[in-house]
Parts: sequence; structure tokens; C-alpha cells
Amino acid sequence: MATDLEQRNTQRQAGTLIENPYRISIPEVRPHLGCGRYAIKRVVGDTLHITADVIKEGHDTLAAEARYRLVDTPSGDGEWKTVPMTFSYENDEWSATISLEEIGKVEYTVAAWTDHWASWTDEVRRKVAAGRDVASELLEGTQLVRDAAGHAAAEVAGTLERYADLIESASRQEDALHVAGTPELGRLMAEHQLRDDLTTHSRQLYIRVQRERARFGAWYEFFPRSQGTEPGKHGTFRDAERRLAPVRSMGFDVIYLPPIHPIGVTNRKGRNNSLIAQPGDPGSPWAIGNEHGGHDAVNPELGTIEDFDHFIGAARDVGLEIALDLAIQCSPDHPYVREHPEWFRRRPDGTIKYAENPPKRYEDIVALDLWCEDYKALWNELKRVVLFWISHGVEIFRVDNPHTKPLAFWEWLIAEVHRDHPGVIFLSEAFTRPKRMQELAKIGFGQSYTYYTWRNARWELEQFLRDLTATEQAQYMQANFFTNTQDILHEYLQHGGRPAFKIRVALAATLSTTYGIYSGFELIENTPVRPGSEEYLDSEKYEVRVRDWEAPGNIIGYIQRLNEARRNNRALQLYTNLRFHYPDNQNIIAYSKATEDWSNRILVVANLDPFNPQESTVHLDGAAIGLENWSHYALHDLITGARYEWWGLSGYVRLDPHDEPVHLFRIEPLPY
Amino acid sequence: MATDLEQRNTQRQAGTLIENPYRISIPEVRPHLGCGRYAIKRVVGDTLHITADVIKEGHDTLAAEARYRLVDTPSGDGEWKTVPMTFSYENDEWSATISLEEIGKVEYTVAAWTDHWASWTDEVRRKVAAGRDVASELLEGTQLVRDAAGHAAAEVAGTLERYADLIESASRQEDALHVAGTPELGRLMAEHQLRDDLTTHSRQLYIRVQRERARFGAWYEFFPRSQGTEPGKHGTFRDAERRLAPVRSMGFDVIYLPPIHPIGVTNRKGRNNSLIAQPGDPGSPWAIGNEHGGHDAVNPELGTIEDFDHFIGAARDVGLEIALDLAIQCSPDHPYVREHPEWFRRRPDGTIKYAENPPKRYEDIVALDLWCEDYKALWNELKRVVLFWISHGVEIFRVDNPHTKPLAFWEWLIAEVHRDHPGVIFLSEAFTRPKRMQELAKIGFGQSYTYYTWRNARWELEQFLRDLTATEQAQYMQANFFTNTQDILHEYLQHGGRPAFKIRVALAATLSTTYGIYSGFELIENTPVRPGSEEYLDSEKYEVRVRDWEAPGNIIGYIQRLNEARRNNRALQLYTNLRFHYPDNQNIIAYSKATEDWSNRILVVANLDPFNPQESTVHLDGAAIGLENWSHYALHDLITGARYEWWGLSGYVRLDPHDEPVHLFRIEPLPY
Repeated sequence: MATDLEQRNTQRQAGTLIENPYRISIPEVRPHLGCGRYAIKRVVGDTLHITADVIKEGHDTLAAEARYRLVDTPSGDGEWKTVPMTFSYENDEWSATISLEEIGKVEYTVAAWTDHWASWTDEVRRKVAAGRDVASELLEGTQLVRDAAGHAAAEVAGTLERYADLIESASRQEDALHVAGTPELGRLMAEHQLRDDLTTHSRQLYIRVQRERARFGAWYEFFPRSQGTEPGKHGTFRDAERRLAPVRSMGFDVIYLPPIHPIGVTNRKGRNNSLIAQPGDPGSPWAIGNEHGGHDAVNPELGTIEDFDHFIGAARDVGLEIALDLAIQCSPDHPYVREHPEWFRRRPDGTIKYAENPPKRYEDIVALDLWCEDYKALWNELKRVVLFWISHGVEIFRVDNPHTKPLAFWEWLIAEVHRDHPGVIFLSEAFTRPKRMQELAKIGFGQSYTYYTWRNARWELEQFLRDLTATEQAQYMQANFFTNTQDILHEYLQHGGRPAFKIRVALAATLSTTYGIYSGFELIENTPVRPGSEEYLDSEKYEVRVRDWEAPGNIIGYIQRLNEARRNNRALQLYTNLRFHYPDNQNIIAYSKATEDWSNRILVVANLDPFNPQESTVHLDGAAIGLENWSHYALHDLITGARYEWWGLSGYVRLDPHDEPVHLFRIEPLPY
Repeated sequence: MATDLEQRNTQRQAGTLIENPYRISIPEVRPHLGCGRYAIKRVVGDTLHITADVIKEGHDTLAAEARYRLVDTPSGDGEWKTVPMTFSYENDEWSATISLEEIGKVEYTVAAWTDHWASWTDEVRRKVAAGRDVASELLEGTQLVRDAAGHAAAEVAGTLERYADLIESASRQEDALHVAGTPELGRLMAEHQLRDDLTTHSRQLYIRVQRERARFGAWYEFFPRSQGTEPGKHGTFRDAERRLAPVRSMGFDVIYLPPIHPIGVTNRKGRNNSLIAQPGDPGSPWAIGNEHGGHDAVNPELGTIEDFDHFIGAARDVGLEIALDLAIQCSPDHPYVREHPEWFRRRPDGTIKYAENPPKRYEDIVALDLWCEDYKALWNELKRVVLFWISHGVEIFRVDNPHTKPLAFWEWLIAEVHRDHPGVIFLSEAFTRPKRMQELAKIGFGQSYTYYTWRNARWELEQFLRDLTATEQAQYMQANFFTNTQDILHEYLQHGGRPAFKIRVALAATLSTTYGIYSGFELIENTPVRPGSEEYLDSEKYEVRVRDWEAPGNIIGYIQRLNEARRNNRALQLYTNLRFHYPDNQNIIAYSKATEDWSNRILVVANLDPFNPQESTVHLDGAAIGLENWSHYALHDLITGARYEWWGLSGYVRLDPHDEPVHLFRIEPLPY
């Protein structure tokens, strides 16, 4: 049977513990995730605060160091770096801070040993203070110095021997002690004394160090086929190129494209998910594959692979990244069906099985079996596809429904890709139970869609954001707050009008460091296919939807200001610095983000009611935002430019959703 | 270097994950301690509630079972037992309860697999409900049954084949479905279907199942040499035997004896810890060893080994256990010094080192070096000593200052002893930092002294007891609440008079399931050697102290009633059921303990002020004690016998320390 890990447990071999007893116990190093089963995630430029418990009998002074190195790079493992740890009596723990300066996988651990010289120094000081004779202790100290000399390089050894001689030959104990207390000797001994009981923490711990985009970015999703100008006419990559500058000027960093591959014809879905496609219906992009190719091909209706290369080059030129959709599924017309029938699930009559979530059946999709007998070939083919798109400049993959594919597959694939391409970001679109979503993130997905669209009330948002940013989840999962998707148009947006759209994008853009909108959001598209449904009417999944991208009533300017505020305020680029404050009125939510040194502080106060003006006193948690009862400051609204003068830890707000439902304040201190 | 454990981390071998991919992820099984590095502890007769997270892609139905077995017994490992787990949608976890019926070490884990038959049944039900044709699904189901038959024993195989035939031959789908839904078929399939992706949790988890005394007992400490009747005359085991019945009648279960071995003469301490002993001074029992022997010998002044055997036999006859003191240290006269000089630390001039905690020096004790080159011989000799006393009927060892000896030594020794003697209890007397105390408990000590003597105020007690009983500490550490020791006479007792003694022993006896007193406590001995010291005047550590064990003013009757209440009320024999309630007056503490079914409920309300009467309304946490606003009940004081009638969730108390400072109520429901 397959098991995740093996563990040789000391307890099973207590009888052998006497053969190789540990000298020092380092029972825990923090942070860790599942005792090292998973890597925690950080971003290059972060510092990591490592703490450790170190336990030894007696009263000797200990020393400890944190060790870390890059591992699993194309050229193997890097060299170990070490950082001394300092002991805190208050917390009874050792700590050090390491800098994460390179993208990749970092292994870290802690080593500890008895600092014999410091122990000896401490012992002698106490005895001298108590008036004791320390002749014997001085002999012991001299021996420690000579032992160190015996293992040191010639020059250092010479210096140490001279110190030993001086101590030995001193006529009075005070003189000997004076020599023994020389700072240079202390430094030499700290470095060269024998670390005879050096012990390393028993677990291997890892950090996945990612590039900044893994944490911070504004995303915009569009369907390339809808980026033309003629209604109903299938757009191309050339058309999509003309949209790059406008999207960039809105302040977005990433454009996410639904699948760009040829689309199946058999059982093609029609408009509004009808079972029969009419001539001219383009089909769902997620029904991948036809005679023109599969996952490594471009839908000829969009263009050629050269057109795609040109498109992604043009995006790079304006500072945009392109994220592709990785959907591991096939239409019945996909080349794999013909070339690798063994990769698919079959019905007893030999026909291929369609993808299902009983009783739902996806008639335009057949089910790949990632546990088929030939699974290694299939997994390697899927890896080849991902590497193919990476070779065409793609560094971000939004993965469709990963919770329907084996965890082991994702864990393997992501690690394989990261070995040579540590900057690639995988976004998990798994709307499922929390533990499944979290497991996907733990085994490698850098970003995850979340329940954001369904968290609208204040208490819901507060609890949800605390779970994301102030629990263990923040060690491994970056939330990507899409306000809407091609599958999800929440009721709040359906009924709340333009104010609701402003509210939800302002919240997304400030609560999380990574957020996105699905195109049409800026145009306040809010019509469901039927009341009570979260599907769009005339969903772009099943037809070409050309829009006037500057239609009146749009909130493009609003989004621009949000993205500008994000770019210009470091506090909004950090994820775990979110703190909530206390408006009296439950319709109003207030939260802040600040840099650690308080140099940049953002306070958001939002009316969650898209219909009615709401007002409230807001009570601030001073400690969370570096303010005191006597503070005097301006609240500079980065959306409107207005400034308000506040004192202390509370103030009054009134927010009219038809005017501006959200204050995005920067706190700017004023003199007394 | 020595490391605790090795771990083969899947991440280091992501490339090989494709070779042996896990089918199902079982990321966590609870409870665990350090991911299996340590065993949790329970008592025989307990049930253990095991929960597990099980994650697989897709929507198949899973099944899981908990597995457990005794390990490391003299006859090897036992057979695995299994218990099916049930899934909770609310908590998204699997759970089962296992019974711990034998003392020893139990290994437990969780296995999970895809329940193909249940998945198929669920799929078919949904499709039928949606009006779909299920001919193909029936073929699949038939195949599942035949596959199961192929691996089953003849008779079962025959039954399964017949079911398959019936399904296949049914003329209508409804009939086929009816057969497929037969409960007998369901049971057979649950048991015999192929568990082709069965996966076991990757970590080995352990429970140390102890005997009940490890959790529940009242302890009494006396010095055998003081149990004579003639003041100043060294008592013997025969004298001590006469004290067994009175101690038992007080309700105690265990008598703990300081070291009973020959006492060193060199540098023997005199009265009140003076550096020079006068002729006739008996010395400190912790300065172990002289010409008459060491750790496996009996101090001739106490008697012979036969006298000890007789004593322990007499104790057993009245239902008392004897706990010995295990102090791993030697006087300068100990046989080891002469026979194994290599086992001791030496000064540079070759003389033996005394035990120290600089600047303090213990002139009557020399330091064994458990890391000497010959450490294996020394460790094995110490094990031999422990086994020697076990062979003489000792099953409890109170270990002196274990934090001055290597953790690895204790981990090894305790495991070695437990293999053949799983009922032996080791009590750690380590007054040191919390993490060190906890590590000793984690690696094997069943009981621990705690900071109880220094927790006197209400808020201190509440926080302290929550730490002990409502955090992870309760998984591995049993607190032993000694009210006083031969080293510790707390200021509260020094100044608070007889009421203080009643308060502190009532708290100890009810807050913890294991508690003790050091003899003299019942006689209100409360004189320190000097003001501000916690040492007793004329400490029994350094002289014979014969008492009149029934001196006037004693609280023997009080202690009897406390121990009687403990014996007769199951709620007081459970450790983690402690809940606090809310008196308005901070001088009064209120807490309860109850059995899980509420059949036995104890409420303690104590005045912590030993000088003045205190009164208060007490607000009860109804959910914690099975009471409601409309409850009507008697509070039956088990100390005085009085009954008070209460309604609902609050009532009034007045406690006069000079009368009875503590109510020990049993809640007895009354009719409306």
C-alpha cells in the first residue's frame, strides 16, 4: 500500500536509544506545517522568523543556530547558511530571522550545542561573586582553551595557546580571570571550541520561496473570442491584443484566459448551456480538443501559436502577465481519445465515460482516468503540456477543478515544474470543502480561489478573513479574491446595482493582496440566467459576447483608483497585516493594514449596504494601527482625494452607496 | 551527530512520487503528540476518541477504520484490532472510539479506502432519481460483485456470484436495482469488496495505557526514620509498619518514602543544613551510599532488606502502595566512587567533583556523569537498581531532580522498565521551566510535581488548572498536587494557620485526581527556618523528627472526609472534567467536576482567605454542570453533611475559614 511518509520512531526502538542517545532535544522548530510534511510559503524578500525549543539537562549555557539552504535546484542543493539564534528568557525559546533572497525551495533547520566556554564563564563568575576559590575552575578553563586550540587552524591555535599560557601563568586568580574574560578570547572560543554534543532538529522543514506576484497582483479575466469589435463575431488574439493597453491602464497585472485550445464538436453545448449547439455556436472552451489538436494547440478561431506568442509578447511589453487555464479534461473529439484510449474510463460496453457528478453529466466532456494502468505516461504527457506553455512564456496557470484529480498528481506535477521553473504560479479553482481546499494548497498550489463571493455580511467577512490571514492557513495559502467568475454572479451583485459592484471590488482589492474581476464586472453586468441562479444570462461560456468596454455607468475609473492605491501603498501589498476595527453600525465594516514600522497605514471603512446611506461611530483598535488616545491625524481618502481630520481612537463616518460607499483612507499624522 | 528521528520527506523525492503515488491522503490523525514523536497517556478502562481527516479527489464514498494493537510486550506485538469509523459532515472528519483494555503501549493508526460499492450505490440512486437509464451502471455494479467474489472464500464467493447472476438476469432495471439494494449484499460487499487503494496514515502513533493509580491516588510522604515513638531515636521499618494503618485510615493510597539507602558520612549535613554534622546526626537521605552499600541497599539504621520486604507486604495487606525515591546521586562514600571512579566527574587535579548549581555546592553529594565514556555500563547499572526494587514489590518511583539528568537516559530507562513492567509509575520532581517539565513528561514520566504550591490566588489557580487540564498538557502529564514537601513550606501555610491548611488540602484533593501531603501537614506544622524561607525549621531532612501523630489541632478528620469523598464520587477520579464557575467575590473560587452522563456532579466553593469570612453570589455555568435556569437541587456538603437547597444558576455562599472554609458539594437533583 502507498503511504505518505515513513517514520522511524525512537519509541519503537527504545532499546536502541542507548546505542545512539540524543545529547540535546530540539522538540520543535517553528514555523512548521504538519511537522514538515508540507512546505510553508513565502515571497522573495520576506524575512522568516524562526523559533525553536532547545532542552538539555542541567544548567549549562547552550548555543543555537538556524541553518538554511536552497535545495532541489537544477544544479542540486546549495550551500548551508547559518544565523546565530538568541535566547529569550521570557518565551523560553531561541529565535533568529533569516532573509529569503532567492526564489525556490529552501530547507531550514536548527542546530544546538553546549557552549562550554560560556557555561564555564558563567560558573566562574558566580563562584567568584560568592567568594569561592576558583583555582580548579581555572585549570578547567585553561583545558577548554587548549582543546579548542587543538582543533583550530595554526594561527588561531597559536593565539588560543597563548591565552591558555597567560591564564595558567598568572600569579593571582584575579589576573587569570581577567585574561579569561577577554572579549577576543570569548569570540575565538565561541567559534572554535569543540561542539561535541551538536544536535540538529530531527525533521526536515521547507519553505517554498515564490516571486512577488504569487502574493500581490490584480487580475482581469477575459475570453479572447469576445475581444473583437463586431457583435457575434469570434475574436482573435490580434483583437485581444488591442485590449491589453486598456486593461493595463485599469491597473491590472495579470490577464487570465479561459482555455485557448480547440473546442470539441460532439455534444457541443449551445447558448445558455443548452444541450444542442446551433450552427455557429462556439461551444464551451472547457470542452477541449478537436481535429485541430488538444491541450498544446491553439484554437484556430483564435489564431496560431505564433499569434499567441505575439500576444504574450505584447502583454509583456505593457507589463502584463498572461495566465492560462489548465483544465485536465477532454471533449470526445480530443486527439487523446483516438491516440490513447487507455487513458479514459470506459463503460462496460466499451464506450467512453463522460465526466459526471451524479446525477449531473457533462455531455461535452469525457473523463480522463489519472489512475489508469498507463498513468505514468499520462502524467508525463500532462507535464509536457505545462512545460510546453511555459516555453511559450506562460508563468501562471489557473487550474480548473483540481479537486477532481488526484492530490498525488498535483503534488508531483507542481514539484516537477518548480524544480526548473520556481517562478510558476498555480492557482487552484477548487470550490469544495475547506479541508480539501487546504490540502491542495498545502501540497503545492500557491494561490486559491476562496468563498469570498459568498461572504457579504460584516461578521461573515471578519471571521472569513481572520481564518485566511491570522491562522495557519496564511502559512501556505494565498487567497485570490475574484469578485465574480464566468460561473458565479452572486445575488448581492444581481440586486445591489452599481454601488454593490463598487463595494465588492473595493473590499476584494484591499482585504486581499491578490484579487480579480471577470470582464463585464466593470460594466455592471448583473443579469442571471434565471432568478435564484448564479449563472449569467447568455453566458460567455457558450457564446461570443462582444461589449462596448467603455459603456456608460462603468466603474473603470473607480477600479483604476483602487489599483493605484494598491500600487502606491506598501501596506496593501502585505497579506497577514489585516486588523479589524469596531464600527457601532453592523452595516459598516472597518479594517486596517499597515507596514510593520507604521510608515504606511491604510484604513478602510465600507458601507456594506448597497441601497441606503449608513452612518456610525467607528472605534479604532489603537494598538493594531499605531494610534493612541492623543493621536492627531488626517484620513486621506485615496478614492476621492478628500481629507478628514481625526483625533484619538474614534470618529464618525457617513457613507452613501450612491455617492461613495467605501472610504479608502491613508493615515497621515498631523502635528499637535 | 545524534538526531531524534529521521523522516523521509515526500517533497525531497517529488520526482519519485510518480513511482509510488498515494491514492488517498490522511494528513492528520488525532490525538497526536508531536506528530507521533511522543505517546499520549491514558488509563486502562478509558476510551479514546480518534478522529482523522481523509482526503481524496472526486466524489466517491470512502470508508475508514481505526486500527490498534499492543506493542513492545515481552511476547512481541499483539494482533491488530479494527473499529469502523463514521464520517461527520459537520466536522468533515472521521471518528471512532476505541477501548483501552490492557495496560501497556498501544499503537494506533487509521486506514481508508474507496468504498466502491457504496459509491456505486450512491451514483445509481441519484441517476434513478433523475430518471436516467442505468443499464450501463448495472453492468458496472455486477462487475464489482464478481470482483469481490473472486477474492472471497468459497461460501461467500458463491453467495456473491448468485447476487451477480440475479442482477444480470433481471428483466427490468427496477428488479435489478432491488436486488442490488439488498442489505445482505451491502454487508457482504462492505466486507469483501476489493480495497484496492487502501492507504494507512503515514505516522505511527502511540498511547501509553497506564493503570488507574497513574491518574488517581492520594499520597502521603513520611520519613521512616521519624516513625518511632522515642524523640530523637532513629526509627525502623518495624516502627514504620505501625503507621500503615493510621495512614490508610486517613484515606491515603500511596506512601512515598525519601531514600531508604545507607547515608554518606563524609561532609554529612547537620541540623538545619549546617555544614558540619554533630555525632548522632543522621544526615540527608539524599546523600546516598556508605560502607553498607548504595542504591540497592537498605540503611541498616532502618533495618534489613527483609524488614523492607515485610514492610511493603504489610502495606499491601492494608491496601497501601509504597513509592520509593529514585535519586541518581552519590555521597562521597558510595560504593560506586570506589568501584567505578570512571562514572564521576573529576576536577583537573583528579579529585571528584561535588554536585553543584553554581554558586551552590552540595558538599555531601558527588556528581555522576551520565555521559561518561562508560555511560552504557552506568545506565545499565541504574536500570538494574530500578529492576531490583521492582522485584521487591515497588511499582512507583518518585524521581528526584530528573532535569539534572539526560532526557535520553530517562526516555530509555522508562521504556526499558515499561516493556516488562508496564504498571510502574514514574513521578518527576522537576521544579524548572515549563518546557523542561513538559518534555520530561512527554518522554515518559507519568506524573509530575507542578507549581501548585505557588498558585494561591483565584486567577492564578484558574489559569494554572486550565493549562494543566484543558490544553495539550493533559494528553501526557498527570499533575500530582503535593500541598507541601520536605523542601517547600509555602508562605500561605506559614501565616494562614489551620484554615490555610484545610483550604490547600481541599483544593489539592479536588482540583487534581492525584495529590499528596508531606507528613506533619496534618499537624499544621508551619514554622520556617527563618522568615522569608520556604524551608522547615529543624527540617526532617537533617534530623529525626518524631511527632505525636494525633496532636491536638490536627486535621486528620478533615483529610479523612476529603479522601472519602474522592473515593465515593467518580467525578473526582477524572482529570479533564474540571470547569470553573463565577463567584462575584475574587476571594472565592468555584469549580465543578462531573461524569460525562451527569450522574455524579461535584461543586467546590472555597474561600481562599484563611483569615476572614467571605461571602458571595456564585454564578454557575449551567452547560458545564448540566443545570438550567429552572433546575432545583440540593447541594450536599460532603464535609459537614449539611444540605442546601438551590434553584437555577446562582446562589449565595458565606464561608468562615475558622469554621469551614470550603464547601465540597455533591449536586443532588430535587423534584419540582
